[in-house]
Amino acid sequence: MLRKIGQVPTTLQVPGFVAGAFAAGSKKDGSKDLGMIFSEAPACAAGVFTTNQVQAAPVLLDKKRIKSGRCQAIVANSGNANACTGEQGLRNAEAVARAAATALGIPEELVLVASTGVIGQPLNVSAFEAAMPKLAGQLSPTGLYDVAQAMMTTDTFPKAVSRHGRIGDKAFAVAAVAKGAGMILPNMATMLCFVCTDMGAKPDLLGQALNEAVAGSFNTISVDGDTSTNDTVLVLANGLSGLNLEEDACARAFQVLLNEVLLTLSLQIIRDGEGATKLVSIQVKGASNERDARLVAYTVANSPLVKTALFGEDANWGRIIAAVGRAGVRINPGTIDIYFDDVCLVRNGLGCNEKAEAAAGRVLKTDRFMITIDLKLGSEGATVHTCDLSTDYVRINADYRS
Amino acid sequence: MLRKIGQVPTTLQVPGFVAGAFAAGSKKDGSKDLGMIFSEAPACAAGVFTTNQVQAAPVLLDKKRIKSGRCQAIVANSGNANACTGEQGLRNAEAVARAAATALGIPEELVLVASTGVIGQPLNVSAFEAAMPKLAGQLSPTGLYDVAQAMMTTDTFPKAVSRHGRIGDKAFAVAAVAKGAGMILPNMATMLCFVCTDMGAKPDLLGQALNEAVAGSFNTISVDGDTSTNDTVLVLANGLSGLNLEEDACARAFQVLLNEVLLTLSLQIIRDGEGATKLVSIQVKGASNERDARLVAYTVANSPLVKTALFGEDANWGRIIAAVGRAGVRINPGTIDIYFDDVCLVRNGLGCNEKAEAAAGRVLKTDRFMITIDLKLGSEGATVHTCDLSTDYVRINADYRS
Repeated sequence: MLRKIGQVPTTLQVPGFVAGAFAAGSKKDGSKDLGMIFSEAPACAAGVFTTNQVQAAPVLLDKKRIKSGRCQAIVANSGNANACTGEQGLRNAEAVARAAATALGIPEELVLVASTGVIGQPLNVSAFEAAMPKLAGQLSPTGLYDVAQAMMTTDTFPKAVSRHGRIGDKAFAVAAVAKGAGMILPNMATMLCFVCTDMGAKPDLLGQALNEAVAGSFNTISVDGDTSTNDTVLVLANGLSGLNLEEDACARAFQVLLNEVLLTLSLQIIRDGEGATKLVSIQVKGASNERDARLVAYTVANSPLVKTALFGEDANWGRIIAAVGRAGVRINPGTIDIYFDDVCLVRNGLGCNEKAEAAAGRVLKTDRFMITIDLKLGSEGATVHTCDLSTDYVRINADYRS
Repeated sequence: MLRKIGQVPTTLQVPGFVAGAFAAGSKKDGSKDLGMIFSEAPACAAGVFTTNQVQAAPVLLDKKRIKSGRCQAIVANSGNANACTGEQGLRNAEAVARAAATALGIPEELVLVASTGVIGQPLNVSAFEAAMPKLAGQLSPTGLYDVAQAMMTTDTFPKAVSRHGRIGDKAFAVAAVAKGAGMILPNMATMLCFVCTDMGAKPDLLGQALNEAVAGSFNTISVDGDTSTNDTVLVLANGLSGLNLEEDACARAFQVLLNEVLLTLSLQIIRDGEGATKLVSIQVKGASNERDARLVAYTVANSPLVKTALFGEDANWGRIIAAVGRAGVRINPGTIDIYFDDVCLVRNGLGCNEKAEAAAGRVLKTDRFMITIDLKLGSEGATVHTCDLSTDYVRINADYRS
């Protein structure tokens, strides 16, 4: 298995935010299944949601509420996705938000909700309602990591990261937690991510910054438009740092940190790919345009035959070049070069030699490497991150509900 | 495992055709790796080839030669795909065809070739050249089944089928052999199919009939345009029956049989899906147009999360509806019905009840069933055939080259 990132970040605190988690009883093993993030003052908020046409109740509710640009609390549960649950599902999402609002003493419109788990089953609202006052009573400035734990489904480790910046004599923090692990087509696993910052912002600028960061992170592990019913990324900015995105220097510094935080979480999600043993970046160069580069990179990254060969540590470049040829973009088979890290395995569409295969075989035995595909047709490129497809992936997903 | 179709068809003979196979030494276990089909008189010929932009040498050669509309012999080898082998690969394909022509005493332009196996390695031409006279010397009217055996790579059983028709007092036969087994995205496995008939034809009518039959068979287990580097379907018609496609009654009767033969082979290929334990048809109804229906059916059929749930015999309809929602076509989540055979599991986007889940669970325990998805938006439909994704699939494909 891949080395997992086991240490608890000690710097996850953001001034003005408290968080915590609780075991409300919906997970069979009795572990935490309900997480809450609370901003002591109403925060500026922005979100990015699934583009799947089948959208879970919490997504529908949040999309409506976040139009106000304000949020004071996020409540997330695991074990049940509250998706394909109809009108009752919407009422249940609202009831969970209302219970949190009551426990926290804030307007219910300032509560956003998120769910992950099995689709199509009614949410056990009364268990969450009963848990909410206890959960609200034990929130703490160091509780974000507990939220990451409570969101886990097939995840094997909690995902959390923070970065700190400084503009003049003022410091600011960006801390985030995420969940997600289904990786054969990364886009198909529910991905939740909540970001807290003490940067000040107005909703439109915060939304722009979030969109840019998502494009360079979660969207490099996900085919455009192909997402689960529940994918949700939320950012809350409470402004306590005294800094504001309206100043250019702040905007630039914040963007750098936000990009870094979301990319790090994306790579943590891939590292936690269900059954994954390798984290592999697919870099396409020399494409006529960026769209072509992305299509080729995704076709290779999502090819089950390529992914099983990676698991088998087999330098089977024929499967890579066959995936390039069916990506639906114009290519010239006779100009393609393929590298495993810095080992050139294919030049102008032809295999190099046995020495190169042996060297590529050594790269394949590592758990983190890059496959570069140079189409030599232009100057555009794209990189996507993926993992291998193992027997454990099938085992995990065949048994998920039972 | 799925029950395999083990019996040797006794009716594979077609007047005027002889065939056979030989172990030329390219397979490690010493089994047959070279097959030959010979028409005693030059036959009318038509073909359908991969749309992958990376095309193997035999495909490039055949596409050139078949323009004449005539063919007298087909030679197919397994173990090596002769793909991504450059100019030398083309010369090797020509050399194999020439050796066959010499051994058979026919013009080399009347020989078509096909290869399946590992990409990017040079063909061992001299072994095939040495084998050719021996192979040509032992062709027999009952040899088609041996050709099916010689084409096998990860296939676990040979695929062969025949049908017989009659117009007035004249009989005609359609017999075919095929190979193919990689099924997680069915389109990615090399598929070879050779059809022999004693129907008479001109190339254009034969080509039309072949296109129609492929559309209803191999293209229902394959995403349009997504094919391997080597996919090839060839039909040879020698006219010995005295019947001809130019007569409407003959054309109709031939089309029915050809459709049936190719569909049967398609289903045999799915049954031999690598590691497959179930043959599942995905039927989409009520779509606004056929393209939408096909896209939805393929998105569900190719979803690894759906396929692993099928393997796990888990009636996880949430994964099905999530795949429908990301298929890229307009749908209404609130009108979708889903059936497992005749068990209604989802009505108007909502799960039915536990009794339905239990009944669907019983359907899932069988090895052949249909999932029907009714979008209730229009009157168009499409059906694709697929199999489940098992731990054995990963094992087979991780180890394929080694």
